[in-house]
Amino acid sequence: MMKALVYRGPGAIEWTDVALPELSDPRDAIVRVDAVTICGTDLHILKGDVPEVEAGRILGHEAVGTVLEVGTAVTGVTEGSRVLISCISGCGRCRFCRTGACGQCLDGGGWVLGHLIDGTQAEYVRVPFADLSLHAIPETVSDEAALMLADIVPTAYEVGVLNGRVSPGDTVAVVGAGPIGLAAIQTARLFSPARVIAIDLAESRLEAAKLFGADTTILPSADPEGMVAEITGGLGADVVIEAVGVPETFELCTRLVRAGGHVASVGVFGTPVSLHLEDLWIKNVTITTGLVDTYSTPTLMRMLATGQLDTAAFVTHHYPMEAMIEAYDVFSRASTTGALKIALTRS
Amino acid sequence: MMKALVYRGPGAIEWTDVALPELSDPRDAIVRVDAVTICGTDLHILKGDVPEVEAGRILGHEAVGTVLEVGTAVTGVTEGSRVLISCISGCGRCRFCRTGACGQCLDGGGWVLGHLIDGTQAEYVRVPFADLSLHAIPETVSDEAALMLADIVPTAYEVGVLNGRVSPGDTVAVVGAGPIGLAAIQTARLFSPARVIAIDLAESRLEAAKLFGADTTILPSADPEGMVAEITGGLGADVVIEAVGVPETFELCTRLVRAGGHVASVGVFGTPVSLHLEDLWIKNVTITTGLVDTYSTPTLMRMLATGQLDTAAFVTHHYPMEAMIEAYDVFSRASTTGALKIALTRS
Amino acid sequence: MMKALVYRGPGAIEWTDVALPELSDPRDAIVRVDAVTICGTDLHILKGDVPEVEAGRILGHEAVGTVLEVGTAVTGVTEGSRVLISCISGCGRCRFCRTGACGQCLDGGGWVLGHLIDGTQAEYVRVPFADLSLHAIPETVSDEAALMLADIVPTAYEVGVLNGRVSPGDTVAVVGAGPIGLAAIQTARLFSPARVIAIDLAESRLEAAKLFGADTTILPSADPEGMVAEITGGLGADVVIEAVGVPETFELCTRLVRAGGHVASVGVFGTPVSLHLEDLWIKNVTITTGLVDTYSTPTLMRMLATGQLDTAAFVTHHYPMEAMIEAYDVFSRASTTGALKIALTRS
Amino acid sequence: MMKALVYRGPGAIEWTDVALPELSDPRDAIVRVDAVTICGTDLHILKGDVPEVEAGRILGHEAVGTVLEVGTAVTGVTEGSRVLISCISGCGRCRFCRTGACGQCLDGGGWVLGHLIDGTQAEYVRVPFADLSLHAIPETVSDEAALMLADIVPTAYEVGVLNGRVSPGDTVAVVGAGPIGLAAIQTARLFSPARVIAIDLAESRLEAAKLFGADTTILPSADPEGMVAEITGGLGADVVIEAVGVPETFELCTRLVRAGGHVASVGVFGTPVSLHLEDLWIKNVTITTGLVDTYSTPTLMRMLATGQLDTAAFVTHHYPMEAMIEAYDVFSRASTTGALKIALTRS
Repeated sequence: MMKALVYRGPGAIEWTDVALPELSDPRDAIVRVDAVTICGTDLHILKGDVPEVEAGRILGHEAVGTVLEVGTAVTGVTEGSRVLISCISGCGRCRFCRTGACGQCLDGGGWVLGHLIDGTQAEYVRVPFADLSLHAIPETVSDEAALMLADIVPTAYEVGVLNGRVSPGDTVAVVGAGPIGLAAIQTARLFSPARVIAIDLAESRLEAAKLFGADTTILPSADPEGMVAEITGGLGADVVIEAVGVPETFELCTRLVRAGGHVASVGVFGTPVSLHLEDLWIKNVTITTGLVDTYSTPTLMRMLATGQLDTAAFVTHHYPMEAMIEAYDVFSRASTTGALKIALTRS
Repeated sequence: MMKALVYRGPGAIEWTDVALPELSDPRDAIVRVDAVTICGTDLHILKGDVPEVEAGRILGHEAVGTVLEVGTAVTGVTEGSRVLISCISGCGRCRFCRTGACGQCLDGGGWVLGHLIDGTQAEYVRVPFADLSLHAIPETVSDEAALMLADIVPTAYEVGVLNGRVSPGDTVAVVGAGPIGLAAIQTARLFSPARVIAIDLAESRLEAAKLFGADTTILPSADPEGMVAEITGGLGADVVIEAVGVPETFELCTRLVRAGGHVASVGVFGTPVSLHLEDLWIKNVTITTGLVDTYSTPTLMRMLATGQLDTAAFVTHHYPMEAMIEAYDVFSRASTTGALKIALTRS
Repeated sequence: MMKALVYRGPGAIEWTDVALPELSDPRDAIVRVDAVTICGTDLHILKGDVPEVEAGRILGHEAVGTVLEVGTAVTGVTEGSRVLISCISGCGRCRFCRTGACGQCLDGGGWVLGHLIDGTQAEYVRVPFADLSLHAIPETVSDEAALMLADIVPTAYEVGVLNGRVSPGDTVAVVGAGPIGLAAIQTARLFSPARVIAIDLAESRLEAAKLFGADTTILPSADPEGMVAEITGGLGADVVIEAVGVPETFELCTRLVRAGGHVASVGVFGTPVSLHLEDLWIKNVTITTGLVDTYSTPTLMRMLATGQLDTAAFVTHHYPMEAMIEAYDVFSRASTTGALKIALTRS
Repeated sequence: MMKALVYRGPGAIEWTDVALPELSDPRDAIVRVDAVTICGTDLHILKGDVPEVEAGRILGHEAVGTVLEVGTAVTGVTEGSRVLISCISGCGRCRFCRTGACGQCLDGGGWVLGHLIDGTQAEYVRVPFADLSLHAIPETVSDEAALMLADIVPTAYEVGVLNGRVSPGDTVAVVGAGPIGLAAIQTARLFSPARVIAIDLAESRLEAAKLFGADTTILPSADPEGMVAEITGGLGADVVIEAVGVPETFELCTRLVRAGGHVASVGVFGTPVSLHLEDLWIKNVTITTGLVDTYSTPTLMRMLATGQLDTAAFVTHHYPMEAMIEAYDVFSRASTTGALKIALTRS
């Protein structure tokens, strides 16, 4: 038996005893979880917003651990390997996986952990397609730094920065300065934009935005459109990254972008938004959406090893794994607790 | 004096005498109009939908003609040159023009003819930035074939086919089979998609779609989503081109596209649309909008010369230029007259 | 026991009895060979030009067959599946395979069949990484048409046409009209170039080039540079594809390309070439080389199914598999036998 | 009359009186030269390596100045504007200029100053196509910082860094640490490579390379292939930039690059090189060459204004303009004088 965080239906989670996971496919691995975190998506599940998650499911899709056992077809990791468990698994052979788009895997991969199969908020976890879902962690990279590569950093980088085509000299506006928005600010810096502008309702998040690399911060009440227009000589931002997931922030993004610019939407949306094509049809804009594919994870891991990124700065709170319920509480009240990401570690 | 089609305010146009145009900048040319056509956008202007068009304006942004006089800075065309007058002018030096994006010209170019300055539905017209706005027509290309390159063919090709990244083997769905949709079907074929599917309310337009290269045609009432899903093994279309400009067709496009696919919006919209990000956020789609830049016009002209495109097929009706008012009437009742494009020629 | 074509060292091959292959990894499949062909590279091996091929090796890296047995980790094909055996295998998890570049696989894939492990010129073959190396063949596609997708068609398409970025309206020159050059001509057509120009020493190959889609054919003695210059108004070809593999043809390619154009080298070279950077440094040219990755194979297979390509036309000679030695002889004397590709089938 | 540096044939230059330049086209401007520099290419001309430069020609293609007079078609700059004179002019309307490739201008632009027409090493200069050849300098940018944008910085950035597709996390090797190589190192940093490795014969240049951003420096005698292989786990560098222009450095580049990588050649070559296609054909490499197009100059100027680049660091020596002959001497003996770039200013 092991301890795990089990979803009991909307509003109900429990840290309780469950059976140990077992290999069920030659491509599986069993991993002991050494550090795990909680995602905003887990809170959505808890509210009942993700109905395909069934009661009884172990939640969690981000972790760092140690490989205990591998199936006969696994060659990329071995027993004892210290690994990142990515939020995205990939079969490696469908039309999407063959081009690196594992987020859209047609054959059992994609986002499955803590969603369609048992997840990482547990002492042990079965990881499918281990060769593509696990990433060896270099010695010099800490568990907590690596843990941020399970979801938020590749998500912000691929779906925000790369889809948005941030380029040297650009003006980049990031709407929303939660963990994803901050990761977008940090990784946008890799392309040397002239300015990164952060927009958020909370002063505290705007302060954090400055630490992660924003040059300018703007409250929504302070006329972001006017300020971006002034900064850009009336053109608008080259790239706007949406990192909230509600209609009013998306619509703000489409007003901030310049003609010929990009709106990269990273937020998870629960409702439709208004797209003002009566203004945008003539502006040659590109709008992208996306679940992360994690094709950038190996590169990001190399950048951790060379010290190019400091992802440990996202971890504001530390708990032992048994304090999972308390950690959910602290994370769910981020606006008062100041939590960005919480690391729960094996004790 | 000369004859021209003058806009007198919403609902009112007149074919009447006006003063001859004159050079006003060293980069101008004066062109005698030999063939001209009417655009759906002209009908929008007539309805009052484009308020920046002032009463007294000569309409029209598509023509073929003969250069009569050029400013001292014009070197690309000379008196007597047979030329295409493009719907887009470009200063050639602003940040957009330098990268071929003349549609967004910041310095007096873009769509100005028949919009912000007098246009081409006249016996003579002053064309600004002649070196970038006029294109010499090879001898073997007819006036009517070239006339289609003033707007609809580059618009459909750049904003639909190239923005949508149509590739060999793709399934392409085109929603709307008016002139722009048909031009999208014709130019999508240049990339050898496996199938082009046309969707339109009018059976007659679907028949035209087949002539221009559609393999499959679907009425909106015949469950296009189901049919596209069936054709594509449940994935959806690789590229969907919107060529109508109303909310319901745009929303249909976003339901037809596959994960990872492109929606290229070509339509001119007068109202916002609903963007269903609650479904699309996870699908990695790319949505593009656009006014044409006409960077493809020289290439398309070469393709007319080599016989790769048959654009003359868009011209369904022929009139002398003096019948301009009648031609507007026939074009405005396209659903009953079957008009695609009307060519009015100098008599 | 089974029959197979065994390499005995330079100049020596034998059709002889060898042991049946067996599964050696959970990702393997055993395939019964139903149709197989010979590649120019096999002739290079026979000459001793590929020293890493050891005596005793079964040659061949192109085949169509029927799956007999699969390892426990294989899920993409099952016993009885009719499959294409691709010349390229891929582990699916190394940094190259994750981005579709299986030709450069770091973990046991790439070009291995008939090279580093036993190949397809045999009654049965063990195929490693079966999920990524085998492609199911649609019912409507013949064995011989599919067989051309094992190597030559994806090689010509990826390394020639796609690397060269053939675009609508382009002038494309293909130097060398053997099977690879002809496949480059055929697949270049998918992008609607204005003209495809074939250059070869043999009149008979130039005749074949016309059948596969060349508009213009030129003997090297007939001043190809002058003719290309004349056709292109002095600019040179937009894309030049090298499909021979000797210094003089490569150097011709670099003289035919326009400023800003692409030279896509597909040939297999045995010696260095002179690159005339004293002329080319100022011309902004792009030169690419490559082994095929086969990322395009699924798309090409779809195009066979929809009838967009007629690859069966490459097969000029048909033999039963036991006539392997005779087939090698006919293929090695292609200039007199007129052989393009030979299909050897199970009797 | 004015003073200017006049080429008198191989080996002979003179600082002497010549006639003042005059407007000869409505698109011209006359500019007073405030700061000017000498390029390695000027030394090539002096040696007689660029035979199209005629005796009597005023040399120089890099300067900063003040506009004195503009033709009637010039609208982008006015009398009194402080401007950069770019090494590249562009007609703005030919097929190359329309896509930003002014280096290949077909209609009188490209590299003409100090080459086909009189250049900038003079008190005054006529600049053709002033709207596209001159760039306004923001107040906060010094003359000397802007002067580096006339040639070396956009050349290194476009032809080296952008053609080479430097990306975050890459290993970049730069062969040659003269001014162009150093500018490549500095601008490669804009894309956050993991490591930049500089290779040069001179220890002093390797020291400079560290100041401009190189992490590792290697003498050619210290086994650069082995060291790059060791650093990259045996793969080779993702991007290799050639910044010398002789066969042995080019060939070194092709040995340093990884499979699938890029060799971006920036050097000016006087002789052919050996391209080892017998090794490279199978490695999927991309090799690019180029004259700068200067499409990046406006972006680089913005980056100077925002402080993202420190180009003034290239200027090691300062002279009044009348010391032109002495400056040529100091620059031609760079290995002993340590000269990178020399700024000569109006006194």
